[in-house]
Amino acid sequence: MKILAMLKSMARVTLLVFICTLSIEMAKAQMVENSVPAPTNINQTQCPCILPDNSVVFQVKAPNAQKIQIDLGKKYDMVKGADGVWSVRTKPIVPGFHYYFLVIDDVPVADPASQSFFGTGKMASAIDIPEKGADFYTVKDVPHGAICSKYYFSSVTNSWRRLFVYTPPGYEANPSVKYPVVYIQHGGGEDETGWANQGKTDIILDNLIAEGKAKPMLVVIANGNVSAGGGGYSSEAMASFKTEMTENIVPFIDKSFRTLANPKNRAMCGLSMGGGQSFYVGLQSLDVFGSVGIFSSGIFGGIRNPSGSTFDAEKEIPGLLSKSAEFNKKLDLFYISCGEQDMRIEHTKKAVETMKKSGLEVEFNSFPGDHEWQVWRKSLHDFASRVFK
Amino acid sequence: MKILAMLKSMARVTLLVFICTLSIEMAKAQMVENSVPAPTNINQTQCPCILPDNSVVFQVKAPNAQKIQIDLGKKYDMVKGADGVWSVRTKPIVPGFHYYFLVIDDVPVADPASQSFFGTGKMASAIDIPEKGADFYTVKDVPHGAICSKYYFSSVTNSWRRLFVYTPPGYEANPSVKYPVVYIQHGGGEDETGWANQGKTDIILDNLIAEGKAKPMLVVIANGNVSAGGGGYSSEAMASFKTEMTENIVPFIDKSFRTLANPKNRAMCGLSMGGGQSFYVGLQSLDVFGSVGIFSSGIFGGIRNPSGSTFDAEKEIPGLLSKSAEFNKKLDLFYISCGEQDMRIEHTKKAVETMKKSGLEVEFNSFPGDHEWQVWRKSLHDFASRVFK
Repeated sequence: MKILAMLKSMARVTLLVFICTLSIEMAKAQMVENSVPAPTNINQTQCPCILPDNSVVFQVKAPNAQKIQIDLGKKYDMVKGADGVWSVRTKPIVPGFHYYFLVIDDVPVADPASQSFFGTGKMASAIDIPEKGADFYTVKDVPHGAICSKYYFSSVTNSWRRLFVYTPPGYEANPSVKYPVVYIQHGGGEDETGWANQGKTDIILDNLIAEGKAKPMLVVIANGNVSAGGGGYSSEAMASFKTEMTENIVPFIDKSFRTLANPKNRAMCGLSMGGGQSFYVGLQSLDVFGSVGIFSSGIFGGIRNPSGSTFDAEKEIPGLLSKSAEFNKKLDLFYISCGEQDMRIEHTKKAVETMKKSGLEVEFNSFPGDHEWQVWRKSLHDFASRVFK
Repeated sequence: MKILAMLKSMARVTLLVFICTLSIEMAKAQMVENSVPAPTNINQTQCPCILPDNSVVFQVKAPNAQKIQIDLGKKYDMVKGADGVWSVRTKPIVPGFHYYFLVIDDVPVADPASQSFFGTGKMASAIDIPEKGADFYTVKDVPHGAICSKYYFSSVTNSWRRLFVYTPPGYEANPSVKYPVVYIQHGGGEDETGWANQGKTDIILDNLIAEGKAKPMLVVIANGNVSAGGGGYSSEAMASFKTEMTENIVPFIDKSFRTLANPKNRAMCGLSMGGGQSFYVGLQSLDVFGSVGIFSSGIFGGIRNPSGSTFDAEKEIPGLLSKSAEFNKKLDLFYISCGEQDMRIEHTKKAVETMKKSGLEVEFNSFPGDHEWQVWRKSLHDFASRVFK
């Protein structure tokens, strides 16, 4: 058809320029033997690519740049090839999800070869290294739920805010059934997209529910940054978020979805800063939440701190140790987890030990990994399989 | 509380580093008088900022870069200040949503100061210039629907794919009600996130429905890139997408949501490449779709093409002109729109004229603007207020 020739030329000129660009990049990219493109790459880009030892080759075409690095926490200098393509092979990287930046002449930016995720307070690149045998966050041929975005009005920020709600398979088909609800919070420098994208909440829950390992439940994924400068741990920030969660978010969810609206069927959990929010807001609101989960939180100490002060559970939550029986009665599940290579692990274990000695019932688990999403995916997987039982 | 000092120090060290970074950037950023930060900025970043004449000031801190530009289609050279902050003020920019890149030593990347959007085949920055008096895509105090992400299996790509579904206010509360469905497609170099993010589909529909100007309806936002190298206009690409839409997507939606499953209550529309898909797939599937909308599509010609061929509606869709009465009977709404500054406008008007002369009922509308999202937001607003009446 004549028009198709015309359309192709138009496409060439306007719509599909990006494909040509990509093709050039991909042509330039030396194919690395025995490597596979990272699942977090965009548009079937070949690099970043992962080698059998989990080292990663990054490449970028930049004939006129002076210096390019990959910042994965550790910075790698890239080397410029004759073709103007810079590349570097990293040390082996532990499986899981890692933020990184392309640093062009000392300006950290997102890598055009990668999907972008909101982390560290801006759009960051990330590389997700598959973990052998770990398919609990892989989309499978099982009944799938949905993640829905909703707007609610916040009396704390005096603005409309977006949150996500995971609804399990069957929610649509069974309009008379009501469900328990987990409220899950992101970490510092992240927002409500964290558990939806990086965390793969929907896939993890779909698989757990299909295996019969978790009850069908809703998972509410809200933005915890309601104070100036994001979230934070100050008493003021915690108080603001407590108001947001208990007076705005929970009532909105109970009004908008078919929920079992009682503490027994409400849980709050979160990672890092969100774990701190779950500790303070959750344990201070046992009339709202009957289960609390704390993943990789710094609240138990573990980072060099000038004051040298250590964690005092009784001071933070009066009665948590001295009246542990009362807390045991109100808490169906009090869960704490941490990555085994996370600098927070020792203080976390020490805090758990102290709580247990005082008679507080705590379920603790740890997973290989540092302060990273693979640990948090496993923490959600573990928490969701224990809660509401 | 002692622990707060500790936590603050931890925060300083690990979690909130990004805030410090941002603060520095913001301190460095010369506040531009009478300017407002763009709504597409990330984390309350001050720049890009918009001046009263809709010119925009961009800034980036890059003491060691050799050359930095802003690529808004037109490239602007940024000027380096003594503090290592580069900046530029653009010419006045027409209101609406515009993709752009920060070009550092000739490497185009997303601007860390901006939200990122999938466009031009990668994560791009964008600046959304507010249009005075246009609040049809502003979140208001009206009943809100939801946008839900779902996985479906594609027999065309032989993989699980994600799509979004807008459900109107009341969908949750009225489990016996069934709804008409609009299937809406993105442009070349974009994906299913386009109409959900750039297009603000949920906000536009919420507002239209609240005003009583549109019927409550579902809007299905799928990924139209099912062929090698994305979408495209070839017969093969169109055939693949026709299979995807009619054999995979529509049956999945009718199975998963409460739909009025007949042509009268199904519409297909799209922008640019998605408009081409709507023209071919929609008009070739009138047993599935009773309404078709084509926004800013290149299919009518309008871009210099070597073959010099012009659009022949009868050749593309046999009978469209010669048996227009049959098409009029099957089509409840055949809608075409284009931006008034879009190079496609003249050929589009000419095609519409030819169709009307042949007796085909076409509703045509145009909006100020080039090949851009503000025109497509208005096209959806216009289409949704006419369809299913």
